[in-house]
Amino acid sequence: MTESLDNVRSTAWRAYIEASQRLFTRLEDDLRVDSGLSFADYHVLVLLSEAPGQRLRMGELAGRLVFSPSRLTYQVSSMQRRGLVARQPCPEDGRGSEAVLTAAGLLALREAAPHHLRSVRTHLMDDLDDAEVACLTRIFTRLGRRLQGVDGTDAALATAHSDS
Amino acid sequence: MTESLDNVRSTAWRAYIEASQRLFTRLEDDLRVDSGLSFADYHVLVLLSEAPGQRLRMGELAGRLVFSPSRLTYQVSSMQRRGLVARQPCPEDGRGSEAVLTAAGLLALREAAPHHLRSVRTHLMDDLDDAEVACLTRIFTRLGRRLQGVDGTDAALATAHSDS
Repeated sequence: MTESLDNVRSTAWRAYIEASQRLFTRLEDDLRVDSGLSFADYHVLVLLSEAPGQRLRMGELAGRLVFSPSRLTYQVSSMQRRGLVARQPCPEDGRGSEAVLTAAGLLALREAAPHHLRSVRTHLMDDLDDAEVACLTRIFTRLGRRLQGVDGTDAALATAHSDS
Repeated sequence: MTESLDNVRSTAWRAYIEASQRLFTRLEDDLRVDSGLSFADYHVLVLLSEAPGQRLRMGELAGRLVFSPSRLTYQVSSMQRRGLVARQPCPEDGRGSEAVLTAAGLLALREAAPHHLRSVRTHLMDDLDDAEVACLTRIFTRLGRRLQGVDGTDAALATAHSDS
């Protein structure tokens, strides 16, 4: 039966999906308590802080976050209201717009990061030996690349969004 | 600096979190297109189908899904409206209530499962060799156990919810 997983793979899949969901909930709870940010807020701040000029086109940001355009608009508007990002027209394309990190956004990220990284260490990374860290990197780097581009779907999505 | 991750671990963490978020979005998109279910719908159906009598107390279900009581109420109400689950008073405790799988819910799960498992295989499991599968199981079984119980937080949460 091509649709089923053998027992060993089914156990691996269940362990991975259930523990990951539990971990993400725990990390987001910690983030909200420590810094008043959601996981998505934090991710947007990280992506903008690493981008040239601390700015990204909305379409590019949607592609990186794997958000639909409407979900991204909602997310960015919420962060705009809290002063964490600004939205500006693209210099080279009057129709498009960019999300730009504000000074308050950078400060919020700098304050949140040490707490968040401590929680990542406590809940996951400190428990892994070197071989497990290498295995995690190998599996998920390959997965990320495959999902992002090889089949073209995500690349096509990012292009479709790049005018918004 | 105790709050930071060394480069190797930081790379592993970023690869894992980014690819996982991308994977979960992709799997949920597939699930919605193939079966009209969200990830949470599917997870509730799986948990109920595996429970004795195909029923779980709301508090137990919230603990298993790592959902707050209000999020679970919203989720179960939405599934009730679609006829996938019913809600009944607990036989042994008049104050509490249980979610019960309906025949329509079981049918929806049986129809969705082969599509969903094929998408899990295509996007992740078929790409892993046996050593990677074993590594995934080891890391995430340990993580799940640790998050679920050892520190008592989740256990305490489940107990607190068990009357609802």
